[in-house]
Amino acid sequence: MSKEKIALAYSGGLDTSVMIKWLKDKYDADIVAVTGNLGQQKEIENLEAKAMATGASSFSFLDLRKTFVEEYIWPALKAGALYEDIYPLATALGRPLLAKALVDVGIEEECTMLAHGCTGKGNDQVRFEVTFASLAPHMKVLAPLREWEFKSREAEIAYAKEHGIPVAATKKSPYSIDENIWGISIECGVLEDPMVPAPEDAFQITTSPEKAPDKPAVVDIEFEGGIPVALDARKMDGLDLIMALNEVGAAHGVGRLDLVENRVVGIKSREIYEAPAATILHFAHRELERLTLEKSVFQYKKNIGQDYANLIYNGTWFSPMREALDGFVEATQKQVTGLVRVKLFKGSVTLLGRTSPWSLYNEELATYTEADTFNHKAAEGFIQLYGLGLKTWSEVKKNNS
Amino acid sequence: MSKEKIALAYSGGLDTSVMIKWLKDKYDADIVAVTGNLGQQKEIENLEAKAMATGASSFSFLDLRKTFVEEYIWPALKAGALYEDIYPLATALGRPLLAKALVDVGIEEECTMLAHGCTGKGNDQVRFEVTFASLAPHMKVLAPLREWEFKSREAEIAYAKEHGIPVAATKKSPYSIDENIWGISIECGVLEDPMVPAPEDAFQITTSPEKAPDKPAVVDIEFEGGIPVALDARKMDGLDLIMALNEVGAAHGVGRLDLVENRVVGIKSREIYEAPAATILHFAHRELERLTLEKSVFQYKKNIGQDYANLIYNGTWFSPMREALDGFVEATQKQVTGLVRVKLFKGSVTLLGRTSPWSLYNEELATYTEADTFNHKAAEGFIQLYGLGLKTWSEVKKNNS
Amino acid sequence: MSKEKIALAYSGGLDTSVMIKWLKDKYDADIVAVTGNLGQQKEIENLEAKAMATGASSFSFLDLRKTFVEEYIWPALKAGALYEDIYPLATALGRPLLAKALVDVGIEEECTMLAHGCTGKGNDQVRFEVTFASLAPHMKVLAPLREWEFKSREAEIAYAKEHGIPVAATKKSPYSIDENIWGISIECGVLEDPMVPAPEDAFQITTSPEKAPDKPAVVDIEFEGGIPVALDARKMDGLDLIMALNEVGAAHGVGRLDLVENRVVGIKSREIYEAPAATILHFAHRELERLTLEKSVFQYKKNIGQDYANLIYNGTWFSPMREALDGFVEATQKQVTGLVRVKLFKGSVTLLGRTSPWSLYNEELATYTEADTFNHKAAEGFIQLYGLGLKTWSEVKKNNS
Amino acid sequence: MSKEKIALAYSGGLDTSVMIKWLKDKYDADIVAVTGNLGQQKEIENLEAKAMATGASSFSFLDLRKTFVEEYIWPALKAGALYEDIYPLATALGRPLLAKALVDVGIEEECTMLAHGCTGKGNDQVRFEVTFASLAPHMKVLAPLREWEFKSREAEIAYAKEHGIPVAATKKSPYSIDENIWGISIECGVLEDPMVPAPEDAFQITTSPEKAPDKPAVVDIEFEGGIPVALDARKMDGLDLIMALNEVGAAHGVGRLDLVENRVVGIKSREIYEAPAATILHFAHRELERLTLEKSVFQYKKNIGQDYANLIYNGTWFSPMREALDGFVEATQKQVTGLVRVKLFKGSVTLLGRTSPWSLYNEELATYTEADTFNHKAAEGFIQLYGLGLKTWSEVKKNNS
Repeated sequence: MSKEKIALAYSGGLDTSVMIKWLKDKYDADIVAVTGNLGQQKEIENLEAKAMATGASSFSFLDLRKTFVEEYIWPALKAGALYEDIYPLATALGRPLLAKALVDVGIEEECTMLAHGCTGKGNDQVRFEVTFASLAPHMKVLAPLREWEFKSREAEIAYAKEHGIPVAATKKSPYSIDENIWGISIECGVLEDPMVPAPEDAFQITTSPEKAPDKPAVVDIEFEGGIPVALDARKMDGLDLIMALNEVGAAHGVGRLDLVENRVVGIKSREIYEAPAATILHFAHRELERLTLEKSVFQYKKNIGQDYANLIYNGTWFSPMREALDGFVEATQKQVTGLVRVKLFKGSVTLLGRTSPWSLYNEELATYTEADTFNHKAAEGFIQLYGLGLKTWSEVKKNNS
Repeated sequence: MSKEKIALAYSGGLDTSVMIKWLKDKYDADIVAVTGNLGQQKEIENLEAKAMATGASSFSFLDLRKTFVEEYIWPALKAGALYEDIYPLATALGRPLLAKALVDVGIEEECTMLAHGCTGKGNDQVRFEVTFASLAPHMKVLAPLREWEFKSREAEIAYAKEHGIPVAATKKSPYSIDENIWGISIECGVLEDPMVPAPEDAFQITTSPEKAPDKPAVVDIEFEGGIPVALDARKMDGLDLIMALNEVGAAHGVGRLDLVENRVVGIKSREIYEAPAATILHFAHRELERLTLEKSVFQYKKNIGQDYANLIYNGTWFSPMREALDGFVEATQKQVTGLVRVKLFKGSVTLLGRTSPWSLYNEELATYTEADTFNHKAAEGFIQLYGLGLKTWSEVKKNNS
Repeated sequence: MSKEKIALAYSGGLDTSVMIKWLKDKYDADIVAVTGNLGQQKEIENLEAKAMATGASSFSFLDLRKTFVEEYIWPALKAGALYEDIYPLATALGRPLLAKALVDVGIEEECTMLAHGCTGKGNDQVRFEVTFASLAPHMKVLAPLREWEFKSREAEIAYAKEHGIPVAATKKSPYSIDENIWGISIECGVLEDPMVPAPEDAFQITTSPEKAPDKPAVVDIEFEGGIPVALDARKMDGLDLIMALNEVGAAHGVGRLDLVENRVVGIKSREIYEAPAATILHFAHRELERLTLEKSVFQYKKNIGQDYANLIYNGTWFSPMREALDGFVEATQKQVTGLVRVKLFKGSVTLLGRTSPWSLYNEELATYTEADTFNHKAAEGFIQLYGLGLKTWSEVKKNNS
Repeated sequence: MSKEKIALAYSGGLDTSVMIKWLKDKYDADIVAVTGNLGQQKEIENLEAKAMATGASSFSFLDLRKTFVEEYIWPALKAGALYEDIYPLATALGRPLLAKALVDVGIEEECTMLAHGCTGKGNDQVRFEVTFASLAPHMKVLAPLREWEFKSREAEIAYAKEHGIPVAATKKSPYSIDENIWGISIECGVLEDPMVPAPEDAFQITTSPEKAPDKPAVVDIEFEGGIPVALDARKMDGLDLIMALNEVGAAHGVGRLDLVENRVVGIKSREIYEAPAATILHFAHRELERLTLEKSVFQYKKNIGQDYANLIYNGTWFSPMREALDGFVEATQKQVTGLVRVKLFKGSVTLLGRTSPWSLYNEELATYTEADTFNHKAAEGFIQLYGLGLKTWSEVKKNNS
């Protein structure tokens, strides 16, 4: 009988490096290491060599950036998905895509098991494993960090040395960091005390607002059907547009977030995020919706967006619920077309203007000048019937007291 | 038979000055002019003299500031009521209180009619008249601006001159402004084009972010039961606290809002607001809730807060719906007790820290250090059942395709 | 200049007969009488002759039944749209279709005005006029019943006699009745006292439960993609299927509804409905959804359905909100395919069984027999994390008291 | 050192009888058997003797019926809590009370562990253990059924015989049944096939609708502040009132429910319920709310009720979320005072009439007779503004297509 094969979500860090050897021994299996590129900056060179040297039987590197932008980020942006009103869900959006990529490789390579390097108290294990349950319910799931014997980083390093696993010489960051093109999350260390402000060294890409330029940047963002398509009148594909906004936003200190959030697994955690492009795009998109969505749709969609964010955060991206919420969102986006002009300055995004061929703002109705076409007389009847229920309630209340 | 008596919400401006005479003549009635102080800065001296000179039979001036803070602003703050996620509802919260004050005076003075100076296309007419319908369903409501003959400001001025009504010599502002302690709203003029940024002269109290101090202000805000009670460790009553925050916030350019919003009467309008204290307090209150509210309560309350905001905006403050929503909100606020430290800098409010005796953030559960008490093994079972529904769905889907 | 032309929603009853003459005289206009067939039973013969005799310049009769079923009833059924959890919205669903038909004829016939025969306190005026506003914002709307001089039915009859308008000799029903294939609404007369049970003579098609057969009827209803397609294994088109269910349901006393409901215009009214097919189909559809929809979708869709029902009731069928809600609903219906067996007996519908190729009920997971495949051990970890937030809350509460 | 002590939720059935011995041996502990009376009919005599004979060190029998009615059932009734719109939550409401009673006895008796007899795939384990986590986070929880060695009922019986544990001679029911005053749940056996109608022998108290009396029962139910206080003009305490309604309802075949529902643990299960009183009271309560609640409160409360039901079903009764929802519900109930007349007939409950001093149904506003006081003219203005947003949307849409 042929050997078992395990597809492992491999990052090249200490945990997943040790994991290759550990899984290989424990399950007497071949290890297929899989790394996906979601736009993270950190070194992704030499990963193949490293994986093979560590004992992997094969290595796959997948450039998922375009798919990430078009099939994950844009739907979330259109939905207005900000977890607990703040977090643009960078890591959370990336996990189902990475998990799907792992499943795809795993199936192609005829693996029978899927392994990831997430801890037992985070959200990411949930996102990985729920995606596995949706896409490959027949495959066994392994989460070594939940069960292996190493009690500390030192124990892992000792194991690595013992087995000739290459370990980066660089000193470990005091923070735990996850990064992709939609944002960076930073936790651990002093950040675990919610009364301590995030130190400057926790931030990876953004300039401090205090040190940001004294001159604001003004950016014009154009949307078509809810998707950003141009910056400052220059058409760009999604990936470039996000990278450009990350750069200008970071330079102006935009997109730093500090959040005590509710995890899936029943605890509150404190997270620092950096997400310049996501912050700017969510802001601009919403402002364009204020102009172009009919009142009830605008207000209703707010709730849909919160539920959409929860769903992403909670790891149920591949679900009939997302399909249903997407059905709602898609029906609203055609008219979210137009231009939003924002100002980036010392850490904040503010609005300079918005315009759209689909604008429902009608100056002739809204104006207080003589161009007014609103029927003021209609208001009397409107208010009478609008308030009639309360009037009746009030009379009944009086009669009963 | 004695003369009719009309209680008029009087501001001393052109409209309500002309209205005293116009109502008096049209209804052959005595006019009881009523002005409420909600903390507006604009001159409220000489109002009595002016009202009497214009023909009022009596004048009441009511200092409503304390009531406004404690019975209107604090409940809205506790509810997290921001209309369309932005507007802290300064004018909208003041209207029902002014309307109630008018009703109270009207009843005491044995008036049979209530009059206000709102236009026929705004929200304020709705707020006044729905409050009247709730509190005094038997009294007749007059809204001269919806029905009188004057087609322009000039026509009103001509009428004023003709009837010896004193008119302020000052040049009219290009904007229409309403102000109280919780915020200022600014509309009209160039603001009617949503692509034009608000000019500096539109702002009444806030410094431009660009001109704000280069050194941030750090403010500690303490809450007890959801209500702010101290600034920088100094206990203050609500009115003083709001005034102090308005001052420091305005100095740092905080609280400028620019909103295309959905009115009650079916149109979108573009509004500029200045609300330093409201912006800071809503921010700080929510951050404290992130720390102290149980997850499901925190997320649910977001929706409650939106509905609460809609209710205020739409003028149904005196309603069983508000009582019911208050029932929910009150039950959640006891534990919203603690301290939030914020930084005010160049137009933005950011978070430096938060702490509470009711904090549900448990460092021992959240930490990634050896102090960890979280049961990592539990996660496996959790995720299995958490994802079981999707797994079943996925299998069924596969079988049907 | 050519004469004005008015398209009138014509029923052949007293009001709209008088209206032809009244409008013709008042506006010196040609009257285009338009009647739509939505499956009402009441005589629709001779309408053309009657309309022309009354003074109409032309008459259009439109068989809208198929459109009604496929484009209005089915979407509402799929959405689970029951107003205030009870009313299947027969009249409410018909109005936008009638209004659209009137607009279509009106545009073809080059009319400049649209007229309807609804009163000033009902919902139907809202449904007609909001549809007009959506589909023909440029056309003037006339609602004679809100403004004409007749104070009573007798006055109208006198006018009719005076102008030679044929009036039915039949004695007027003590009730006001509206009917289409999806249901009948009955109001007025003794029904205006909510403490008086609806008398037997109020019901138009249903047998009294007490007089219904002692032997139940059993009906198998098959759905494909949320739409009923067969009864008792016989494929039928929608119209026939509804008619067949109305017949068997009515015979068994099914579908009588008695509702104090909240109108759009701020009052509560008491309505009696008969809707056998609608009652049975909504029941069966929901039972199939229980079997085939994933938990979160099933629970979420309940709220969507309520909002969908409100939207229909409130007359905003032609709106971006409906498009958005339809987007959600459509995404959920593919799998609502299967068979529901119901029992009709003495006024009630009960469930005998349901089965579906898309069933998410998994007997191997649910069973308590030895075939059980559920992982009981997983529950411990699940509950630990599921209850962790409350445990933390409880400890904090204890520490603070 | 003194022995460990375990408080066990004891029913006297096979599982918990075996459990006394098993726990005693496994943990070398004293077993405190605790039985609560929630109104179940099944024999609760001789429980003490049986428990002691089986090896318990002490036995507590608690009559919880009054508490159950007043502190659990009435709040759920006021909230309108029906899980997935159907299930009145009898078992689900009883669990937190039983769990709390167990905790109370456990603390008094200085136990260190809490044990229950629920399986690993049901909801009840969640309800017990989440309550334990809320009320006694320091106590260890034991769920023997999830971990013991017995694979079948036969194995348990063998163990019982071996250890001299008395086992009832009666043949086991083919169903698994749980019962209290608010309802009975029935599962297992042929019921596991959702296409098989529940056989008559599955029902414990209700007459089959087909065999129910040919003459309906008419019952007048009076509510005060949302709570039923009298039947047929006779004041009764809650317990008696529920028992009386169970009796008359059961005789008329009322309260049989057949539900494929979504469990907490991720599976769908098929349940049969009998709940005559709960069915009648929820029906009547809601009808009274239709009459007495202001429109927006009535519609909003529907969602609150669903969330309240979910919370009960999911076991989080002792939670800040319930306190918050109770805050909402309580604020709405004062005016839910009045009388509802219902008809019980052949399995169904129908409405004969409703009346209340707090009725918001105003016949003078609703009537189509000459007593009408509604301002028909107001409707024109109302509809104009009500439809203005859609009109604007429609024009913009036309311009863009």
